[in-house]
Amino acid sequence: MKIFAYGIREDEEPSLKKWEEANPNIEVGFTKYTLTADSARLAEGSDGVVTLQTSPYTREALEVLNKLGIKYISIRNVGFDNFNFKDLNDLGFTLTNVPVYSPNAIAEHTVLLMGRLLRRVPEFDEKFDNGDFTWAPTIGKEYREQTVGVIGTGHIGRVVIKILQGFGAKVVAYDVYHNDDIEKQGLYVDSLEELYKQSDIITLHVPLFDSNKYMINDKAISQMKDGVYIINCARGELIDTDALIKGLDSGKVAGAGLDVLDNENSVFGKVWSSVDNIPNEKIKNLAKRTNVIITPHSAFYTETAIHNMITTSFDSNKALIEGLKPNNIVDTTK
Amino acid sequence: MKIFAYGIREDEEPSLKKWEEANPNIEVGFTKYTLTADSARLAEGSDGVVTLQTSPYTREALEVLNKLGIKYISIRNVGFDNFNFKDLNDLGFTLTNVPVYSPNAIAEHTVLLMGRLLRRVPEFDEKFDNGDFTWAPTIGKEYREQTVGVIGTGHIGRVVIKILQGFGAKVVAYDVYHNDDIEKQGLYVDSLEELYKQSDIITLHVPLFDSNKYMINDKAISQMKDGVYIINCARGELIDTDALIKGLDSGKVAGAGLDVLDNENSVFGKVWSSVDNIPNEKIKNLAKRTNVIITPHSAFYTETAIHNMITTSFDSNKALIEGLKPNNIVDTTK
Repeated sequence: MKIFAYGIREDEEPSLKKWEEANPNIEVGFTKYTLTADSARLAEGSDGVVTLQTSPYTREALEVLNKLGIKYISIRNVGFDNFNFKDLNDLGFTLTNVPVYSPNAIAEHTVLLMGRLLRRVPEFDEKFDNGDFTWAPTIGKEYREQTVGVIGTGHIGRVVIKILQGFGAKVVAYDVYHNDDIEKQGLYVDSLEELYKQSDIITLHVPLFDSNKYMINDKAISQMKDGVYIINCARGELIDTDALIKGLDSGKVAGAGLDVLDNENSVFGKVWSSVDNIPNEKIKNLAKRTNVIITPHSAFYTETAIHNMITTSFDSNKALIEGLKPNNIVDTTK
Repeated sequence: MKIFAYGIREDEEPSLKKWEEANPNIEVGFTKYTLTADSARLAEGSDGVVTLQTSPYTREALEVLNKLGIKYISIRNVGFDNFNFKDLNDLGFTLTNVPVYSPNAIAEHTVLLMGRLLRRVPEFDEKFDNGDFTWAPTIGKEYREQTVGVIGTGHIGRVVIKILQGFGAKVVAYDVYHNDDIEKQGLYVDSLEELYKQSDIITLHVPLFDSNKYMINDKAISQMKDGVYIINCARGELIDTDALIKGLDSGKVAGAGLDVLDNENSVFGKVWSSVDNIPNEKIKNLAKRTNVIITPHSAFYTETAIHNMITTSFDSNKALIEGLKPNNIVDTTK
């Protein structure tokens, strides 16, 4: 039995080695290259492939896999939007994803962004770089004094809430679907407007739908407290960047922590010679501000998350090869 | 009734105003200057003084206050080592301090330093400054996967423990005096050696005594896990800086978060034109490292802490003037 993996990064190799050791009956091959019509041939002799890439999977690549007799594809991430389901169905592939790899990675990053803003870390960093070792007047705020509005109480939002409660912060939550535990704790407010009204910090943990694109717009910001902090480790398109910039300019928004941005693909994942050379004026505007912290969609990026992405994808691929039906098979009929 | 306050900073004024409003029967005067023989005269007509400074209080200054008929001094901080108790006793002063103003300020800063190291924030910041918006290979670690050794389970250490438990981290603790709640939770280990052996992160929350000066020395570090992180938001002299530098050089110590340093007064509270000009080679050595985060004894510095320092010191001074005995009177007979 053999599994071949594409797009393997150096940081994934330790977890890959561990999985191999734990599954001595399965041969594992891998390449750093993504899955293309060319690289697909590397999977010859394999029963399934494991893959991860940010660009679309071509029909040509899938046709090569099909000719090699491969039926099982397991992606190491959540999102399967790089696949054309028709191609998968025409060629008889079964696809699995990794629905949850580490809510804590993203939740911890979220809470860390809040703390870096509350304690004015970028300003302290700037002082440090200038040899300024004074503390006044760069006074901070404490988590425990904040009311944090958590929008979305899925896996990630719930971990955020648990962490914040450890800090002694007050939490209010909003979600269309109520989670039993959060409901029992009485954390839900009835409307986003109510959440905006009460929160010193607002953090987003909802998936992106047509209906919530740019939900954080001029109107939403106008309903928030003066001096609110906004955190987004979910999807960039949830925030109307123009509205955010306007809010920052007026001081209505005291700061933002952003792991995702509208049109982030024009900037993230790339190396520019400096922030000045970012080819997106809105993102550049945000990146120049001391009260805005931007991280390059790295909230998920922990050793635990990577380990789980490797382990779950390989386990699923192995299960498919063995004729089992893992519960993370993607429904490609929709 | 009048209270005069010394060394008032701009960030203290809002809390001072609030206290005044809440105590309309008491006149409040203040100056930004510290208490000296000259400035002491400003307290004329007052019944008590509130003060805060990092330099020694001179006998001359106290003599002037004494001649003005003032008997009550309330400091806004914990430490009273800038007073000569003989002077206070000779001149008949009663002294109060603020024993606890915000354990959370320091505990939150401590946990934030851990997170900034675990998620390699200084490296991400460096990438950001160079226009590098990639995440690999700057992989992070999660709090919940760490075993954190908390040395000292007083007010601050216990808040640190509570916050870390919210993250889902494992905590082991050491203290000569066992706290009931921490004991019940079964968190204590029997020796520092055992704590060093188990901990991925070690954080110090003990006062400084002759007996624990440089407790983190070569021997202690040799007993720690490879790749340990060390956090110190307590007192600089708890760590032998040479031993720490050696540990960082060898990689035994993966990183450090330091709000206090041995001989920090040679550097902190001052503005150097750049980190290169720090007049202390050991501190400069630490400050140049990407895996060391130095903050200028600012862990305590939050709005809540400042508010509590003002409120408690003025409340105590008022109580003394009214002939009461607040429970934070400093025993100057020892």
